[in-house]
Amino acid sequence: MTTEAKPSTRDRLLEAAAALTYRDGVGIGVEALCRAAGVSKRSLYKLFDSKDELLAASLEERAAAFAATLLPAVDDGRSPRERILHVFEQVESQAGVPEYRGCRYLAVQVELKDQSHPASRVAHHVKANLTAFFRSEAEQGGASDPDLLARQLSLVFDGASARAGIGADQLTGLIAPTVATLLDVAGMR
Amino acid sequence: MTTEAKPSTRDRLLEAAAALTYRDGVGIGVEALCRAAGVSKRSLYKLFDSKDELLAASLEERAAAFAATLLPAVDDGRSPRERILHVFEQVESQAGVPEYRGCRYLAVQVELKDQSHPASRVAHHVKANLTAFFRSEAEQGGASDPDLLARQLSLVFDGASARAGIGADQLTGLIAPTVATLLDVAGMR
Repeated sequence: MTTEAKPSTRDRLLEAAAALTYRDGVGIGVEALCRAAGVSKRSLYKLFDSKDELLAASLEERAAAFAATLLPAVDDGRSPRERILHVFEQVESQAGVPEYRGCRYLAVQVELKDQSHPASRVAHHVKANLTAFFRSEAEQGGASDPDLLARQLSLVFDGASARAGIGADQLTGLIAPTVATLLDVAGMR
Repeated sequence: MTTEAKPSTRDRLLEAAAALTYRDGVGIGVEALCRAAGVSKRSLYKLFDSKDELLAASLEERAAAFAATLLPAVDDGRSPRERILHVFEQVESQAGVPEYRGCRYLAVQVELKDQSHPASRVAHHVKANLTAFFRSEAEQGGASDPDLLARQLSLVFDGASARAGIGADQLTGLIAPTVATLLDVAGMR
């Protein structure tokens, strides 16, 4: 929101969809969404064709914050290697919060099991942008095989956030040495 | 099943729960499960206290097959390094099947978002056994830090199967070099 005005009906629905889906999963009902947003079903369906479209829009809405939280500022003066490590420091830090349930863009795709679902498509696109960031930094850092390194870092990102999200690993002492090893072997400056 | 007799009501329910949950997610309804199993709801509730208990039992039932498919035979004469690589060859091979939706034991935990759910507990236990296998092989192979290597391999397992399951990566040319790098750096014979 750019003003301090009361959030619009649309904003309240997007926020409720993002929060409840993250906490409870994509199976969350329309009634629960409307209750959390303080909005009638009629209002929801005036703004969104379906719950699927609301879910997709809520993921799209969060995409900028997702990138801003994870990625370093453009031209922050650090090396590509440091810029990549920055992303994984954010993941480790996020994973320490009790409410952490992993990457929402991975979770929604795992849950929906349908790559053509509008929310899966948004999620796929957001994560492809993260891989593209890794690819670009890998190339600028002189990685021997930037494509491979970008895929490896995406794999580590998803594996780490998923394992932290389900409480299988806390990531401390794991994610930093793993990423450093992959960067070293790729010859990343 | 150990005989060629018609599957029991219980076996049909376990099979339907495993198959439908894997394909459609944990939100699958009791009606759909009963229809797929050819069993009445009354029969389901005579055998299981709840859908949650049926889901947990179906994951438990599959645990032996999960291990048998992934893990090498005990004392197969190969080195710990080769035995670990064997697991990831199986993942890459499974990921090539169109119906592949990733590791069912990761998916159910991501979907349920509740570590105390009976199905989450079964899934957590099954995956902890996989990490224990990695840990044991790492130690036998002389890894410099067997705990770290076991956590890294578990992370790669979950990241790779999740990304393949959502169609974000095919794993070809990714999983083998990544695991080999981690084994090399750990000094695994």
